[in-house]
Amino acid sequence: MRNRHHLGHPNAPGGDLVMSAHRTELFSDAVLAIALTLLVLDLSIRTFQASRLQSTLLHLWPTYVAFIAAFFYVSVMWINHHFAFARLNSVDKPVMWANIAILCGAVVLPFPTSLVALAFEQGSQTDQRVAVVLYALLAALMTLSWAIFFVVVARRPHLWKHEDSVHVWKHEIRRSTAGAVGYALTAIIGFFVPEVGLALFLFFPIYYAFA
Amino acid sequence: MRNRHHLGHPNAPGGDLVMSAHRTELFSDAVLAIALTLLVLDLSIRTFQASRLQSTLLHLWPTYVAFIAAFFYVSVMWINHHFAFARLNSVDKPVMWANIAILCGAVVLPFPTSLVALAFEQGSQTDQRVAVVLYALLAALMTLSWAIFFVVVARRPHLWKHEDSVHVWKHEIRRSTAGAVGYALTAIIGFFVPEVGLALFLFFPIYYAFA
Amino acid sequence: MRNRHHLGHPNAPGGDLVMSAHRTELFSDAVLAIALTLLVLDLSIRTFQASRLQSTLLHLWPTYVAFIAAFFYVSVMWINHHFAFARLNSVDKPVMWANIAILCGAVVLPFPTSLVALAFEQGSQTDQRVAVVLYALLAALMTLSWAIFFVVVARRPHLWKHEDSVHVWKHEIRRSTAGAVGYALTAIIGFFVPEVGLALFLFFPIYYAFA
Amino acid sequence: MRNRHHLGHPNAPGGDLVMSAHRTELFSDAVLAIALTLLVLDLSIRTFQASRLQSTLLHLWPTYVAFIAAFFYVSVMWINHHFAFARLNSVDKPVMWANIAILCGAVVLPFPTSLVALAFEQGSQTDQRVAVVLYALLAALMTLSWAIFFVVVARRPHLWKHEDSVHVWKHEIRRSTAGAVGYALTAIIGFFVPEVGLALFLFFPIYYAFA
Repeated sequence: MRNRHHLGHPNAPGGDLVMSAHRTELFSDAVLAIALTLLVLDLSIRTFQASRLQSTLLHLWPTYVAFIAAFFYVSVMWINHHFAFARLNSVDKPVMWANIAILCGAVVLPFPTSLVALAFEQGSQTDQRVAVVLYALLAALMTLSWAIFFVVVARRPHLWKHEDSVHVWKHEIRRSTAGAVGYALTAIIGFFVPEVGLALFLFFPIYYAFA
Repeated sequence: MRNRHHLGHPNAPGGDLVMSAHRTELFSDAVLAIALTLLVLDLSIRTFQASRLQSTLLHLWPTYVAFIAAFFYVSVMWINHHFAFARLNSVDKPVMWANIAILCGAVVLPFPTSLVALAFEQGSQTDQRVAVVLYALLAALMTLSWAIFFVVVARRPHLWKHEDSVHVWKHEIRRSTAGAVGYALTAIIGFFVPEVGLALFLFFPIYYAFA
Repeated sequence: MRNRHHLGHPNAPGGDLVMSAHRTELFSDAVLAIALTLLVLDLSIRTFQASRLQSTLLHLWPTYVAFIAAFFYVSVMWINHHFAFARLNSVDKPVMWANIAILCGAVVLPFPTSLVALAFEQGSQTDQRVAVVLYALLAALMTLSWAIFFVVVARRPHLWKHEDSVHVWKHEIRRSTAGAVGYALTAIIGFFVPEVGLALFLFFPIYYAFA
Repeated sequence: MRNRHHLGHPNAPGGDLVMSAHRTELFSDAVLAIALTLLVLDLSIRTFQASRLQSTLLHLWPTYVAFIAAFFYVSVMWINHHFAFARLNSVDKPVMWANIAILCGAVVLPFPTSLVALAFEQGSQTDQRVAVVLYALLAALMTLSWAIFFVVVARRPHLWKHEDSVHVWKHEIRRSTAGAVGYALTAIIGFFVPEVGLALFLFFPIYYAFA
């Protein structure tokens, strides 16, 4: 392992700004932790008719499905982020911005998540179609942002901890691109059969969690 | 104490992915801190009738009881988490997921907490029964996730800081299992007498805090 | 400075559980940061009458006063916490719980803060009285929790970084007790003249910030 | 690089309280991460008319524009904060307070952001004018707080990591002051043509992100 502190100098030789990855990890942990925890806000109900709590809760099943899907999604993101940064010693500005693009996905995720839940609870099939397609397209973009991140990182060997990481980055680029294609296909399927889209939203992160 | 930095290498000898526990601690701290702080959102009132603020507030006593119960619950979780990780040098993927299962409990907790408060404020006895049973079952699952975490950890001596930790893990497995049984019994009691369930929700975390 | 890492061992000689203060700092930072940031939620307005945005905003002046008071309060808490922990090497369970009591204050603070704002915007003088007295009593308890924290810390020289810290703890105990008395007096004053209570809520933290 | 740990002593020679910048970084990361993540709350919709989800979403375009502007704003703040603190070894009380002033901007930002969105969705041109001018003035104050921070830091060479940082601080003071002037001009422009104000709110942070 190279010495982290010397790389912490903001002006590394060559004039390229290179910094320890530590604060980027910290900031990412905080953003992912908050994104994960804010998901619970969508579960809350403010009011209900007397003696109807049970049926009110049962009616909200799409909210629970959406919560579980999003919770797994962010958890998988955190674990992937952890493994990626375990191979990085330091970051530069392009890596920071690629990382922020990834975080943007986690920040935005509760929005399509609650839309999908709302569409299945209150909406017609047209609404479900809109919500499912929007979710799938945003998820495809989020997965694409990982591919971009790994492309940016793969071009910067001076930031790596281990010289043999190149095959890991290539593997991750393939995996992320495949995921983006998967979500794009889900957008098409979900346009015709929204329920299948919802099921796939649940399936993908659980699959990635255990695969 | 073993050297943390060498274990930080994502490819430890043996091909098993082992990483420093540091980021897992950070992420857990952030999730628990946010779960703790979000509890205040349930206390807020958006409006009230003129000159009726005092009676509005007094009417909300179940919300305060639920807040105190949940605040102690998350605080006890944090202290237990702290003591558990003080004995861990590093984590692997199964430990990370077992840890995420624990955090999931803290993230979800505000949901049954506010349901119980709402049921005692606005609901019939049927609603209170539903809310109390749901809370107790989720709390039982949460406590069970600790038992699973300690079982996973107990099987991985290469992650421990001290070789003599095995009796600690065994003690914690027993304690968590007993807690899960306690909450399951509370679900049964709360089905018949919801008020006793509410009292036990307050009692358990305070007991664990000082025991 | 004593060696932090050796004290990190959860079983220090003597059987007393002593741990590095690092995670307690992290957790406290996270809680205080979230408490600070959640204050903005009270500023938000969800709707307004067309062409009436300006008067709607001006009508909300008590919300801004309450926001500034609470923002300074939490900021002062963070700075005090920082200076206190800069003198601590490690913590044990009583210190952790005294710290959690302090954090509880920061977590709860948005509740009386928004109540005071609401009472001055929508309520009668009776409501303002209720809100101001409640705020002052909770603020007195919060300040008292600092006094308790410093009493707990003052009795544990084995946790300190510097042996000469005893006069600092004594000074802080006096300062916190004086603050608690100040807020208790504010409760009495605010019962008769709520507006003066509101002004004092703004004054105290700004005074502590610069004094 | 000077030794961080010796500067961590709260009583540095000379009686001036000087502390490691580490906790200030942590706290700032947490506040910025939360401010960033809370922005998503404004995207959420709680209800809509059946079969009208798509038009409801399209109608909310100012909310998305405001979200993107604020997301870039906080991201740029975090990167700037990162680069500034990479040059600091330690902090004293004035630096801490200058830093809190910067964080205050990030905390408050969601308020004018949602006001602008609301004004373009529900309001007359008068309301848009009010919201845009308020946003621009608050953004000018936020940018000014950076200028103040760099002035405070520039006067404290004993806190720097590298002796050659002085030209960096001077450059940053000029850049922040220029930004504050830019937002003040935007307030004037936005008073006459609110739409141009909205466009500039989007332009500035994206420009700073890539410039």
